[in-house]
Amino acid sequence: MAISMASASLPIFRTMLGNLSHFLDKGMAHAQARKFDPQVLASYRLAPDMLPFTRQIQIACDSVKNGVARLAGVEAPKFEDNEQTFEELRARIAKTLDWLETVPAAKLDGTEDKDITFPVGRESTRTMKGEAYLKHWVLPNLFFHVSMAYAILRHNGVELGKADYLAGASR
Amino acid sequence: MAISMASASLPIFRTMLGNLSHFLDKGMAHAQARKFDPQVLASYRLAPDMLPFTRQIQIACDSVKNGVARLAGVEAPKFEDNEQTFEELRARIAKTLDWLETVPAAKLDGTEDKDITFPVGRESTRTMKGEAYLKHWVLPNLFFHVSMAYAILRHNGVELGKADYLAGASR
Repeated sequence: MAISMASASLPIFRTMLGNLSHFLDKGMAHAQARKFDPQVLASYRLAPDMLPFTRQIQIACDSVKNGVARLAGVEAPKFEDNEQTFEELRARIAKTLDWLETVPAAKLDGTEDKDITFPVGRESTRTMKGEAYLKHWVLPNLFFHVSMAYAILRHNGVELGKADYLAGASR
Repeated sequence: MAISMASASLPIFRTMLGNLSHFLDKGMAHAQARKFDPQVLASYRLAPDMLPFTRQIQIACDSVKNGVARLAGVEAPKFEDNEQTFEELRARIAKTLDWLETVPAAKLDGTEDKDITFPVGRESTRTMKGEAYLKHWVLPNLFFHVSMAYAILRHNGVELGKADYLAGASR
């Protein structure tokens, strides 16, 4: 089968959000084993001017949700960005994955040359062709925030390895 | 134009390796401005059992080089993995990008269902179809190591932002 906009995106989105949820399980288990408040991890930042763990998860979900909605031309659900706990973050990922299943793959196919306009910062927008938007915006953003979540947990001693990050590859 | 194995991979590889090289420039400039030895950054790890900065760069290059070579069925150049300095790491990225230009895009196209067998650890191999190998192995690995390089520099105060990581999006 020839690669398509749907095949080049949906399996990656499902895999990486699934792995991200698995990171949360491991982070939570680590906090419980070491008897510290998981909120320490949830609010941790790798640098004072980087986003905390909670925002990494929220934005990872939003890269997928907004990316798919814009490409497929469907409405994305609105999330409140009020998650604080690991349970709430896990629920946000689950909600995103559930919504993803409602989008017909066929709506993504053929969107290579579709103009996608999206907000950049608070006061400007950018327009890219569908394929470029997927490759140079949605995918890099998703992988970035999943990797930052991983990095925050690993930096704090959570037992994660490359196999957890790549887990979907063996599914 | 319909997305293809070449269009879904080569522009991402070029963009992310170009951005990675730009991270190195910023890391180097930061060390010079603060008057500390850039080797401190080059050997920095986010956790004692994570790979140092140098290895993140080497592996980012190798994900691209080996991924393309296996998909396109061409020979990848051998690198010695002996880079220590920022200049040497920058040269490795440049070498990888130069080699990439020698691979005809047409050799990547149509490799969706090609069996790709690659080493996993020292004693085993895995076989995946070309499209899955790109989506669930090559791309996640590349983005991971570029993101870890970014995280190491940001954690150490280097002035990088999301715009540097996404820079290719505006090229």
